Amino acid sequence: MRHIKQADKYKRMKGKVTAMNDFIFHNADKVYFGKNQIEHLPEELLQFGKKVLLVYGGGSIKRIGLYDTVVSLLKSNHIEFFELSGVEPNPRHTTANRGAEICKREGIDVVLAVGGGSTIDCAKGIAAAALTESGDVWPLVSKGVWVTEALPVVAILTNAATGSEMDAWAVISNMDTNEKIGLGGDALVPRVAFENPEYSYSLPTYQTACGSFDIFNHVLDNYYLAGDATFDMILEFQEAVMRAVVKWAPVAMEEPENYEARANLMWASSMALNTVLDAGTLHGCACHAMEHELSAYYDITHGHGLAIVTPRWLTYILDETTAPAISRLGVKVFGIPETSDAIEGAKKAIAAVSDFCFKTLGLQGSLADLGIDDAHFKVMADHACAGGCISGPKNLTAADVEAIYRMCL
Amino acid sequence: MRHIKQADKYKRMKGKVTAMNDFIFHNADKVYFGKNQIEHLPEELLQFGKKVLLVYGGGSIKRIGLYDTVVSLLKSNHIEFFELSGVEPNPRHTTANRGAEICKREGIDVVLAVGGGSTIDCAKGIAAAALTESGDVWPLVSKGVWVTEALPVVAILTNAATGSEMDAWAVISNMDTNEKIGLGGDALVPRVAFENPEYSYSLPTYQTACGSFDIFNHVLDNYYLAGDATFDMILEFQEAVMRAVVKWAPVAMEEPENYEARANLMWASSMALNTVLDAGTLHGCACHAMEHELSAYYDITHGHGLAIVTPRWLTYILDETTAPAISRLGVKVFGIPETSDAIEGAKKAIAAVSDFCFKTLGLQGSLADLGIDDAHFKVMADHACAGGCISGPKNLTAADVEAIYRMCL
Repeated sequence: MRHIKQADKYKRMKGKVTAMNDFIFHNADKVYFGKNQIEHLPEELLQFGKKVLLVYGGGSIKRIGLYDTVVSLLKSNHIEFFELSGVEPNPRHTTANRGAEICKREGIDVVLAVGGGSTIDCAKGIAAAALTESGDVWPLVSKGVWVTEALPVVAILTNAATGSEMDAWAVISNMDTNEKIGLGGDALVPRVAFENPEYSYSLPTYQTACGSFDIFNHVLDNYYLAGDATFDMILEFQEAVMRAVVKWAPVAMEEPENYEARANLMWASSMALNTVLDAGTLHGCACHAMEHELSAYYDITHGHGLAIVTPRWLTYILDETTAPAISRLGVKVFGIPETSDAIEGAKKAIAAVSDFCFKTLGLQGSLADLGIDDAHFKVMADHACAGGCISGPKNLTAADVEAIYRMCL
Repeated sequence: MRHIKQADKYKRMKGKVTAMNDFIFHNADKVYFGKNQIEHLPEELLQFGKKVLLVYGGGSIKRIGLYDTVVSLLKSNHIEFFELSGVEPNPRHTTANRGAEICKREGIDVVLAVGGGSTIDCAKGIAAAALTESGDVWPLVSKGVWVTEALPVVAILTNAATGSEMDAWAVISNMDTNEKIGLGGDALVPRVAFENPEYSYSLPTYQTACGSFDIFNHVLDNYYLAGDATFDMILEFQEAVMRAVVKWAPVAMEEPENYEARANLMWASSMALNTVLDAGTLHGCACHAMEHELSAYYDITHGHGLAIVTPRWLTYILDETTAPAISRLGVKVFGIPETSDAIEGAKKAIAAVSDFCFKTLGLQGSLADLGIDDAHFKVMADHACAGGCISGPKNLTAADVEAIYRMCL
């Protein structure tokens, strides 16, 4: 799960990691997937009203012609729209607040996000803040409010990565306080999402790599926590999604306009966090929790931070209790031959994850490569563990987190 | 998919079996899964209103105490309720019509089904008919109307089998005309479902076996049609669900109160038809289409009829084009070693399906065992192919269907 305050998260989850937890499965998002679906945009927007706030980032949706397509559909259907552009890669609370102000002033009925996860997250922040008296999203974020009322969000996805197009979460950054925190709530699940793999054709190789690893880690962060708390079939679903990322990410990097590769990554992005893979589990977020501190302090690309942290985290938590699951990951996801020595198998699995990050995806392998030193490690670790510790296959204290950061140097 | 008129089905699907079909994913059903969830029933019913029609079958929900639990929750929350009991295993249109009449007369707000797939299907028929002027479900069924308006249905599931608790379909029988036809529609997806594996503890061994094979076939009927029309991960999800059935059905038969076994079957039932396994596929229904004629004419248990038909269907369609997929089924689901000879592998896979049906599940293996002869084969085959032919990995004409029926004698 994308990082929220740990204490709140586990308070909400209520359960413990025991065999077969009770769970609620509910995801009402209506996803139009494929090449010829955007024509349905007007009818879906109009069910919520005639006033739309169009939210997007930089110029990429203009370059690929998607902006023109959307605007043309809005105009020809007499849908009045306002715009908020310039959403940042790690979207700021101040940007969300500007959007909420437009919503309040203009009586917006529905927030339409066109872009990647950051844009959709920002739209969710706007949708939540617009219905508060203050119009400020930060109190909701910082207090860990579970959002039950928000304007409807419709998303047009251009980047397979965060899963925001089908999940209940938004990650909002406050650069004044170096905080990057998840805002969650049933009301934040997009009502409708459009996923056309072609919209991700123009994505740069680096973004494709980072997005792919974000998907991979969404599943992995949960995988080890799942264990006997869930069904075999759910573990196998998780492995199937990770395999899809391992198979198709390098293809998409090599052939940016390979439809099958882009489609696999896009649907993997949605499946990773639409809770199909969660049944009975306590969705873990160890790497995400650690990485969010890195991007909060250094504004690095989230998926890259995850790639640096993940193999070190696996190494740090490796012992006899975690080895069987890590070893299974190697066998099922990377095709490593089974071995009777779980520790040996787990080490090979970690090497495979590392190779995937730094060879296949071509990401730089250390924090030093990104110009990050240990100056803020302690405060970042304390902050990541503000709720006590990071729960997972091994619960991590601030000292553990700091040690893992040092392994990433 | 549970059988609907073929012509309508494929008209609605519009697509062809080509690589990566566009698709819409939407399932808003809210599922409470586990032991301690029924307390949420009143709050969920009350969102729709205060007048409930309680629909159930025979005495089993009274024997296990579920009837008392539900009635007590309704009463203590001042929810007024009316009852329709005696829903048949293959629910009749006349029964649905009696329910619709109560809904119209009493101004029912929500239909609450407590039971297995038949009860839930009947509740869906009631919910659809209640909003028509005639109050008669049969014109909707026989005309293949796609239901977009119906009273809300809430389901409490007691039998892992049909998937009705999470799908958009109801199968309704007209014994006057020997017709058993699916009624589909977005409005028929239950709004809320409660799945407590304990409610299926008292299910007889035979019903457990039949329900399990129904689940297995829901996936299998789709598996061969999927091919390159969908994602690898979806094929792998399908295999994971079939493996779960193969693993846990015999455990549930041996140990009826094994929670893990009942839970796996129940979630497999829901996953098989909640469309997670459909992305991009044209959901096939060859065996279901053939079996529905059997139960329409002879009122046999659906899952048993499927078990008799399925291995013969696989044998009938086996050739060089279908062999790779059938062989893969054997490898992935039944653990048969891979072979370079696809026909050989497929034959082993079919033998494994047959053993699963007639040894593991202990079901009688022929129509003759059920007292069925060839008297009606021709008219049944004609009826199954009323829409032209049964689409699938091999399209089946009426002559093909009759030949398969004869293999089942």
